[in-house]
Amino acid sequence: MSVTGITASNPYSNVNDLLSNVRNFKIIESTLREGEQFANAYFSRENKIKMYVERDNAQSREDCEAICKLGLKAKILTHTRCTMEDAKLACDCGVDGVDVVIGTSQFLRTHSLGGRDMKAITKQALEVIEYIKSRGCEVRFSSEDSFRSDLVDLLSIYRAASNAGVGRVGVADTVGCASPRQVYDLVRTLRGCVNTDIEVHFHDDTGCAVANSFTALEAGATRKLALRSYYLDDHSDHSTYIFQTDHRSDDQYSLQKYAFRLTFCGIDIDTSVLGIGERNGICPLGALMARMMPTSRDYILSKYKVHQLKAIEDFVAETVEINVPFNNPITGFCAFTHKAGIHAKAILNDPSTYEILKPEDFGLSRQLYRYVHFTSRLTGWNAIKSRVDQLGLKMTDDQIKEVTAKIKQMADLKVMTLDESDALIRSFHLELTQAEAN
Amino acid sequence: MSVTGITASNPYSNVNDLLSNVRNFKIIESTLREGEQFANAYFSRENKIKMYVERDNAQSREDCEAICKLGLKAKILTHTRCTMEDAKLACDCGVDGVDVVIGTSQFLRTHSLGGRDMKAITKQALEVIEYIKSRGCEVRFSSEDSFRSDLVDLLSIYRAASNAGVGRVGVADTVGCASPRQVYDLVRTLRGCVNTDIEVHFHDDTGCAVANSFTALEAGATRKLALRSYYLDDHSDHSTYIFQTDHRSDDQYSLQKYAFRLTFCGIDIDTSVLGIGERNGICPLGALMARMMPTSRDYILSKYKVHQLKAIEDFVAETVEINVPFNNPITGFCAFTHKAGIHAKAILNDPSTYEILKPEDFGLSRQLYRYVHFTSRLTGWNAIKSRVDQLGLKMTDDQIKEVTAKIKQMADLKVMTLDESDALIRSFHLELTQAEAN
Repeated sequence: MSVTGITASNPYSNVNDLLSNVRNFKIIESTLREGEQFANAYFSRENKIKMYVERDNAQSREDCEAICKLGLKAKILTHTRCTMEDAKLACDCGVDGVDVVIGTSQFLRTHSLGGRDMKAITKQALEVIEYIKSRGCEVRFSSEDSFRSDLVDLLSIYRAASNAGVGRVGVADTVGCASPRQVYDLVRTLRGCVNTDIEVHFHDDTGCAVANSFTALEAGATRKLALRSYYLDDHSDHSTYIFQTDHRSDDQYSLQKYAFRLTFCGIDIDTSVLGIGERNGICPLGALMARMMPTSRDYILSKYKVHQLKAIEDFVAETVEINVPFNNPITGFCAFTHKAGIHAKAILNDPSTYEILKPEDFGLSRQLYRYVHFTSRLTGWNAIKSRVDQLGLKMTDDQIKEVTAKIKQMADLKVMTLDESDALIRSFHLELTQAEAN
Repeated sequence: MSVTGITASNPYSNVNDLLSNVRNFKIIESTLREGEQFANAYFSRENKIKMYVERDNAQSREDCEAICKLGLKAKILTHTRCTMEDAKLACDCGVDGVDVVIGTSQFLRTHSLGGRDMKAITKQALEVIEYIKSRGCEVRFSSEDSFRSDLVDLLSIYRAASNAGVGRVGVADTVGCASPRQVYDLVRTLRGCVNTDIEVHFHDDTGCAVANSFTALEAGATRKLALRSYYLDDHSDHSTYIFQTDHRSDDQYSLQKYAFRLTFCGIDIDTSVLGIGERNGICPLGALMARMMPTSRDYILSKYKVHQLKAIEDFVAETVEINVPFNNPITGFCAFTHKAGIHAKAILNDPSTYEILKPEDFGLSRQLYRYVHFTSRLTGWNAIKSRVDQLGLKMTDDQIKEVTAKIKQMADLKVMTLDESDALIRSFHLELTQAEAN
């Protein structure tokens, strides 16, 4: 039986598309930075080089320098406190960009920053931003504990950082308290206040990191045209400039050649492999992929090698000595196991009935056993029928129902393996053949 | 240092309170129903009785009857396909209520229900609902695969079920495709169409089950006054009736005594312990508790014995032979472990700086080791200072910074245990004392 005119995507996704574009986003892979804050994480330099992308502060400066010298295609960013001391060390490592972070909630200003007020924090941030720019590095400015910060404080400091020329501003749910609607409201509001990319960073203490990341994308992915300025000397090969000036009338810019370009600002999502990070971690890369696939499959498959997901997760799990959670989206051992009879029956007709993700997209082999779990009390005879066919045996529907009843009876008493249910099917079939022969 | 005037709750939560009430909800614990669909779940009757609440269909009828005979305070509900055959078996078991479910998406109507149209499905549903009511049981009516169903189809069948007198209607994200804003829109709309409780059921294939449950609560928890009718004979002790009639003029009701009562309709959230269920499962009970605590701590502590959470999770994990995921909210081994130096320093000042959940609420012991993870390269000297104090040793700040540098150096080479860092601190202190004596 085949269904025409049904797409695997959610019918409601069209509604969202009017407001936002979830098919265009960037991921900032932070396993080496946030991930190293995970309780069990002790990465050797060799393993760091395997996992490179965003590095933590200057404490492991040699590792950082070693990664920078690899000459990778990826940009190497480092993440530091928003202080002049950290910024200097970071720039000395030869990175492409520096992500600076400073606490803005009253909790952090009181307990981590010695009671400083927002005015002092803003002044310090602008000095550090100016310094990093003068060293020729990109700057990302993030507040810490954004969702327990005052909204006006937040928007003010982001606007100041945006005007100072940072490439990205970061929203961080450092304590994991944010809920999707709060995220939507804040990112939507911020989108109207800054002409930069927005980076989002969600901790998973309350289990919402994936949903918050997705909702941020919905709120901010409506890319906004922004007029950004560039030094002509740096970007002379760009063909997308729409106008340029030789000089500006105000003193500050009078000696510089500037070009202006219309650019699109988007959303960058922080992830780490398996979500490892401080406390119970942040948005996991694999779960975010699972979340994006139903709405943005073509985009993801064109941009990410998702079939390597399992290998990457296994590597990181081994390195930090944890198990991949049983309920991990995509790669959890039961992610594509269907047990209830009515589910198994429908899956045999068409997997999309109960599956919005295709295991083959992720390089996972489609085994029927993985698909339909036979050996349970809840198993339907349709699943057994399919197995009988696979084993090359001939039985009538009534006979299959009879052997299904036997399998269920045994499954009530013990956990059955596939071999055991196969053996039961084969011996039942043998009896039938012998009965016929007699 | 102490902070006055800061509450642990999210400052934005007040905004939501104008629209919704997240401090009043019910949980439908479905470990025995949905949980038994988990790949590894084979529950013995003994274990089922320990875990009772919502039972699956009539396949395990004797288990269900045994649970009903226990005379528990909890209501016993059973979950069946929306067919007359299943409904009869369910009512025969002596349950308090029957939850019926029928597929409404085109996927399920095609592959699971033989291509039936919504008219036929609605007719069947109303017959089954009428029958169950005639047996004196409560009825919950749920659609299956609600988020890939046509919105008008959905609202029509829910309205019909509501008019037929069901106590609850269920929204089920059977395939795990829903996102928070879709949930908000659907539940908000549905809230205006039915005068019943709304039950929500979210699968976790894309990692959004907890966020979707919370968002449903925001959308539907604005409890709506509903005029419900009761037989006077059944509810003669109720004091909350606001008016009553001896008869109704239309034929259908002319022989019955009716009372009307203003009731409040709320949201019921399906959970299972650790989220076990079909494929990678549904909304986990513990993670939902973590999500609700920052906004609704008093309500939860008054209603749920959250300090038993870990024991319940451990019991279920053992029964189905899985590990509690490393990143499980609240009970994951690192949920209250702080590793980065700036985090550790602030936590020592006040835990609420980086924690929105209190481990002691969940009966978890507050060990400093659990709190501040010392033995890492990222450890700050403040954490070491606190440990030096705990060990009863006297050192100056400069000396503590010196030993911290030694600990970091060693942590670069190997994973250090608490014992090892203690030994290093003690031997450093011994050297200081000997140097002073000489």
